[in-house]
Amino acid sequence: MIGVDDVRAAAARLAGIAHRTPVVTSRTLDERAGATVFLKCENMQRMGAFKFRGAYNRIAQMTQEERERGIVAFSSGNHAQGVALAAKLLGARATIVMPSDAPASKLAATRGYGAEVVEYERARSHREEIAQSLCDERGATLVPPFDDERIIAGAGTAALELLDEAGNLDAIVTPVGGGGLLSGTAVAVHGVDEHIAIYGVEPETGDDVRQSLERGQVVRIPVPQTIADGLQTQAPSPLTFDIMRAHGVRVVVVSDNDLRAAMRFAFERLKLVVEPSGAAGFAALLSGALNLAGKRVGVVISGGNVDAERYAALIAIT
Amino acid sequence: MIGVDDVRAAAARLAGIAHRTPVVTSRTLDERAGATVFLKCENMQRMGAFKFRGAYNRIAQMTQEERERGIVAFSSGNHAQGVALAAKLLGARATIVMPSDAPASKLAATRGYGAEVVEYERARSHREEIAQSLCDERGATLVPPFDDERIIAGAGTAALELLDEAGNLDAIVTPVGGGGLLSGTAVAVHGVDEHIAIYGVEPETGDDVRQSLERGQVVRIPVPQTIADGLQTQAPSPLTFDIMRAHGVRVVVVSDNDLRAAMRFAFERLKLVVEPSGAAGFAALLSGALNLAGKRVGVVISGGNVDAERYAALIAIT
Repeated sequence: MIGVDDVRAAAARLAGIAHRTPVVTSRTLDERAGATVFLKCENMQRMGAFKFRGAYNRIAQMTQEERERGIVAFSSGNHAQGVALAAKLLGARATIVMPSDAPASKLAATRGYGAEVVEYERARSHREEIAQSLCDERGATLVPPFDDERIIAGAGTAALELLDEAGNLDAIVTPVGGGGLLSGTAVAVHGVDEHIAIYGVEPETGDDVRQSLERGQVVRIPVPQTIADGLQTQAPSPLTFDIMRAHGVRVVVVSDNDLRAAMRFAFERLKLVVEPSGAAGFAALLSGALNLAGKRVGVVISGGNVDAERYAALIAIT
Repeated sequence: MIGVDDVRAAAARLAGIAHRTPVVTSRTLDERAGATVFLKCENMQRMGAFKFRGAYNRIAQMTQEERERGIVAFSSGNHAQGVALAAKLLGARATIVMPSDAPASKLAATRGYGAEVVEYERARSHREEIAQSLCDERGATLVPPFDDERIIAGAGTAALELLDEAGNLDAIVTPVGGGGLLSGTAVAVHGVDEHIAIYGVEPETGDDVRQSLERGQVVRIPVPQTIADGLQTQAPSPLTFDIMRAHGVRVVVVSDNDLRAAMRFAFERLKLVVEPSGAAGFAALLSGALNLAGKRVGVVISGGNVDAERYAALIAIT
């Protein structure tokens, strides 16, 4: 199992490449949560999400020959852009398999980073098969969104920066989809201080990680219906599950209304654009789903990629 | 005339009270501007704008007796909230004269900081007269939005932090309304390095400061029609004019479309909520109105207070 040294090695690879994103505070948030909260703004990371860290750390460890044969990823979200940008910076050919009904802005952004986009129709074909056949044809390497120790170690580097800036913390909270960010955070944080509690926040309709940790085995659920498009995973991987379990991670859930309220809070009070998934961590503190009164709490805001039209609808008062 | 020591004294008063706001960078902005740009995020300041700095520095220098007699300000914008919050923190009674058709959110925010709001009808009465009669009745002190050396020195503290974080700069750019931020910035910056060029950016329909500097005297214009509601001043004050002139400040203008494009850029790329006035500085770099190719440039993002509905309309692609 990976340790904090792997995260530190990832941090060294990312130095001067990834943004060292700001850590911000809000007295209003502190009053609402009854806690002292430090927000790590990975929505301000390159390509708009923490995903760049893991993708870069993964591709940086490929040989020149592997990079020339290329990499393949499938994603309709931030992983696509993270891989595309990291590949461009590291001189690797990237092919991203994306659904043809993905938002035009995400298709354009991925192509904008120089990646080849292979579109598929969700109803007619499976992206895993398309990606695998591309790998077989080309001898390319599949870069998964979270089921990879180098991806996980890269994701954990945000927590190291947060600890460095905020000083002693009692708890760290992150959104959890497949568990890459949360398991990387646990590894990083417990390598520095094993007494810090680690919390993940899922949408209530997509509590696969909570169920998995409660039952002591990976539980697969149907595709969750939620506005948090980055947290629609159906199950953690055995790798992320084992790490989260070993580190005693606890998971709470929030509703879509909690996520919208948190996005509005970020708009009005923090002046930060946060995507629905990215708001899950502090949504749990604002809604009371997670009560850490009296504690010093670090929260990762994981991403800020959302179309203007959708954003306007989500932050509107209804 | 005030000097950098006044700004340093203001910074000492604000230490631990005002946020030390983040300085962020964007490779895309650098490519578009051909420069190395450092953005000082005063939209993330307390109450959402740099105005808090000046208001606090002004009220902190009042005696306890003066604070008890109270302060009066007139503003439909960020100055209202800045004064209200600073007064609350310093135990002063605040009365803010605001038009009855001001956005409900701004009236509510000002009251939320504990200030008394006196509403008036724009068509029927003059806010200066109302404010003056309140001062006369109560023995209260009028706190103006920019025509005050302590307000100007407070505003300049943002530039000191920016220089401290960004290192050597060739130029600094800020929005300019009445000239409080720009003159405070000039005083602060030239107290550190007199070779740094100082630029202000105005809406093209509201170029009172540009005209004033060109003619060598204060020029008054009709109320400008622009989306930059914080930059609708009709003239600099003799005080801010003299400082800007003495420091060789240069002014360029941007269109409302340039401001909207900059707000969208901040939304999409920086994940920052910026109000129209707040975007003027980097709008000039993005639009080409200000060409600082090859230079290291600091830009103050001055505020982020904008209603959700208006924001949605402004960042929409049209």
